[in-house]
Amino acid sequence: MNNQTELQIIGIMNTVKDLGAASAVLGWDQETYMPDGAGEARAEQIATLDTLAHQHLTSDISKKLAADVRGMNGEATSLLKLFVKDHDRAAKLPEELVRETSKAQSLAQEAWKRAKGEKNFSIFAPHLQKLIDLKIQAAELYGYEKDRYDALLDLFEPGMTVAQLDPVFKELADGTRDLLKRIEPNLKNADNSILSAGFDKEKQIEFSRFIAEKLGYDFNHGRLDLTAHPFCTTFAITDVRITTRVFENDLRSCLFGVIHETGHALYEQGIDKKYARTFAADGTSMGIHESQSLFWENMVARTEEFWTWALPHLRARFPEQLRDMTPRAFFKAINTIQPSFIRVEADEVTYNMHIILRYHLERDLINGRLKVEDVPKVWAETMQEFLGITPENDAVGSLQDVHWSFGGFGYFPSYTLGKLYAAMIWNQLEKEMPDVREQISKGEFLNIRVWLRENIHQYGRTQEPIEIIKRVTGRTLTARDFLEYVNTKATNVYEL
Amino acid sequence: MNNQTELQIIGIMNTVKDLGAASAVLGWDQETYMPDGAGEARAEQIATLDTLAHQHLTSDISKKLAADVRGMNGEATSLLKLFVKDHDRAAKLPEELVRETSKAQSLAQEAWKRAKGEKNFSIFAPHLQKLIDLKIQAAELYGYEKDRYDALLDLFEPGMTVAQLDPVFKELADGTRDLLKRIEPNLKNADNSILSAGFDKEKQIEFSRFIAEKLGYDFNHGRLDLTAHPFCTTFAITDVRITTRVFENDLRSCLFGVIHETGHALYEQGIDKKYARTFAADGTSMGIHESQSLFWENMVARTEEFWTWALPHLRARFPEQLRDMTPRAFFKAINTIQPSFIRVEADEVTYNMHIILRYHLERDLINGRLKVEDVPKVWAETMQEFLGITPENDAVGSLQDVHWSFGGFGYFPSYTLGKLYAAMIWNQLEKEMPDVREQISKGEFLNIRVWLRENIHQYGRTQEPIEIIKRVTGRTLTARDFLEYVNTKATNVYEL
Repeated sequence: MNNQTELQIIGIMNTVKDLGAASAVLGWDQETYMPDGAGEARAEQIATLDTLAHQHLTSDISKKLAADVRGMNGEATSLLKLFVKDHDRAAKLPEELVRETSKAQSLAQEAWKRAKGEKNFSIFAPHLQKLIDLKIQAAELYGYEKDRYDALLDLFEPGMTVAQLDPVFKELADGTRDLLKRIEPNLKNADNSILSAGFDKEKQIEFSRFIAEKLGYDFNHGRLDLTAHPFCTTFAITDVRITTRVFENDLRSCLFGVIHETGHALYEQGIDKKYARTFAADGTSMGIHESQSLFWENMVARTEEFWTWALPHLRARFPEQLRDMTPRAFFKAINTIQPSFIRVEADEVTYNMHIILRYHLERDLINGRLKVEDVPKVWAETMQEFLGITPENDAVGSLQDVHWSFGGFGYFPSYTLGKLYAAMIWNQLEKEMPDVREQISKGEFLNIRVWLRENIHQYGRTQEPIEIIKRVTGRTLTARDFLEYVNTKATNVYEL
Repeated sequence: MNNQTELQIIGIMNTVKDLGAASAVLGWDQETYMPDGAGEARAEQIATLDTLAHQHLTSDISKKLAADVRGMNGEATSLLKLFVKDHDRAAKLPEELVRETSKAQSLAQEAWKRAKGEKNFSIFAPHLQKLIDLKIQAAELYGYEKDRYDALLDLFEPGMTVAQLDPVFKELADGTRDLLKRIEPNLKNADNSILSAGFDKEKQIEFSRFIAEKLGYDFNHGRLDLTAHPFCTTFAITDVRITTRVFENDLRSCLFGVIHETGHALYEQGIDKKYARTFAADGTSMGIHESQSLFWENMVARTEEFWTWALPHLRARFPEQLRDMTPRAFFKAINTIQPSFIRVEADEVTYNMHIILRYHLERDLINGRLKVEDVPKVWAETMQEFLGITPENDAVGSLQDVHWSFGGFGYFPSYTLGKLYAAMIWNQLEKEMPDVREQISKGEFLNIRVWLRENIHQYGRTQEPIEIIKRVTGRTLTARDFLEYVNTKATNVYEL
């Protein structure tokens, strides 16, 4: 390994990363401003960029450079190791399989939309089967030690396995059911009707911008737009954009959407600039990413302390609706717990049951222990078992999420991992910064942001999630912090 | 040449075109929505896309395919010939020269901004010299028959030469000076003060959108945004976007900016869809493109007939300011003629003198007959000779335009060519559609658009400008139609 080799690797990473950034800009434009009639051409353009990126990453030159780094026997920098990791993974899939999967995903997404519209799982079933077959092929090519599903999990959460997840998710599910039972008799103690009192959309957006800026989102290197579903997308460390949606009769959707995406954006904006245009300039995993968004959304902004500071600012925008509102009443309103069918509308507590359900299903689909045709039945049974409700059709059941239709098997667990990580990180922060709640109650967020940046954000992908959690909290993944956190909160909200 | 070769060529064109489209999206985003702090990363991303496009177009495979087409001895389709043309041109420049020019242009643009700010040509002079040296190298590599400047002219107006331009521009300059003398005693007969009466910006934009839609701009395959300078940009035949700017005290800027860009957009939206993602999916030259924008802006929308239809719609938005306005008075207000320093603010008549001045200067700079240091002096002398005014500093003189700083030598003549072509095309249309003015006075534009589409738009780049003008008008380039057109209009406006 000489300096020339390193420069060549960085050059390839720059090209691949720039292509990825361009693809992301085209995707963002598609969701925000693209005229309706341009979809077909846009799909071609994005496919071209993605194909070129894959070609550059798996070219003969990249192959040779990756071999050079492997020849260093572990003495390479973490950045060069990332290059090898991404090269090896990309090179494992023959271009034919990549192309076939890409096509199958496009078709599956169209079929999924149709199936959801007609509330009919059987329209989607053959496409789901095809994607599972392709993902099984991919998993076999990627390789795994114990469980085939591990190979897919690793794409979203490096190092995570079924063996680690199963006991943690079991503890979480048991704890959640206990909590739900505990709340049941006290449901009348919390009321969220105020949140649908009717709130001007423009003012909601303006307030959300105000909050995002206060939390530290840098609008000189980002922006906020409206889309059907909120997301955060990164074109460069210096260009991280967020989107949200807004409803007049749900004050939560826009505001907590923005705070959530701000959490993602602070992570991306906080990556060390020396990693710009390299494979390190990204969140280390979907789980850690989600921990950052949930940290700001739940640990910071769904607290009574936060609304002690923020409520007067919100009331200034909506004096009539919020005339008699107190921080405590508002805190209770935004923290009600209620089993429901739709994952994205679920509260902090029941949300995880939606995830564990999906995890079980996709793990077993990939492992061949569940047949596609049985998905709706098992879905309904598990919902009944987990939350005591049964979906009346597939649209509010197994067809509600887009993920499977784009082949995202292994993605769902990230959402709950994010919740567990966030609770662990919050516990650690409270230890190291005992007055953090007081800071929040004064609208001071700089210290929190700096702490997260120093401990997590700056590293980008140069440290794996397991390393980060171990270094920051001194522990390994557990559901206990989260269960304690939601039990304490529920006790407070429902006056148990 | 077999079918396989043709498919390969189309594949390469698709890739190169998709990269170009992605680059254009990133450029559009930069001008419209990109956060300020993202400029550096964006420049890298665009450079990467442009470099990859150049590499694909000049690869060994492309070289071989181009040779295959050449081996057909002229029997190839116009589309395949375009591939060869673009390949050959790209291949003539060594990558080193491309890179050096790209860097020099970046530096020159920064220096130009500084020089313009400080009204000091000498800051820009060394950069201009460097770019001229590089463009001379490029011109020698491209090759030419008689005049070195022809090689650069050909980049913007295929087939155009100094030998053709010189006599046409001389006739135009002489005719323009005659006309200006003729108007002089009657200046008081036209007044445009109403245009700065103060017009709400939102309403101006809304009215401009209304007009663009009426002219036939397809908002399902396009959109209108605000930028510092108006432009039209194409990501696909199905995604052609326009931008404008808006000033409260100049009713012309937004409205005629939008109509102008709509003219460009109708051209791009009118290209035959079978050329999608190929090198034919583009205007055939800058001159023909400009003829389309000017056609709608001047021949259609600066007529009394147009305002017979449009004024009531405008008055509905601005009842107070336009209470006593008549179509005739409005027609006169938007057609006043007045020598001034700034090209982009010039009227239809004096505008060409700005262009001929620039043409003389850049032709002589490239030919080595003019020294960079003499530019400001010659500029001032020519302005005095052409329009009887002398700029008081370089910012309103030789530093006003961005074009030279991005190396666009050969571009300026396109603007005046567009004016001459537009007048020739209008004359032909009036012959073939004798009631065209009546149609305009009723707000009917469909027949005009269909005529332009059938005669010009649909062909994209598959016909060269000379071919198109000859086929449509039966004649070759002349200044006469334009001179007649402006003389007739001036007689009307100034009651000569």
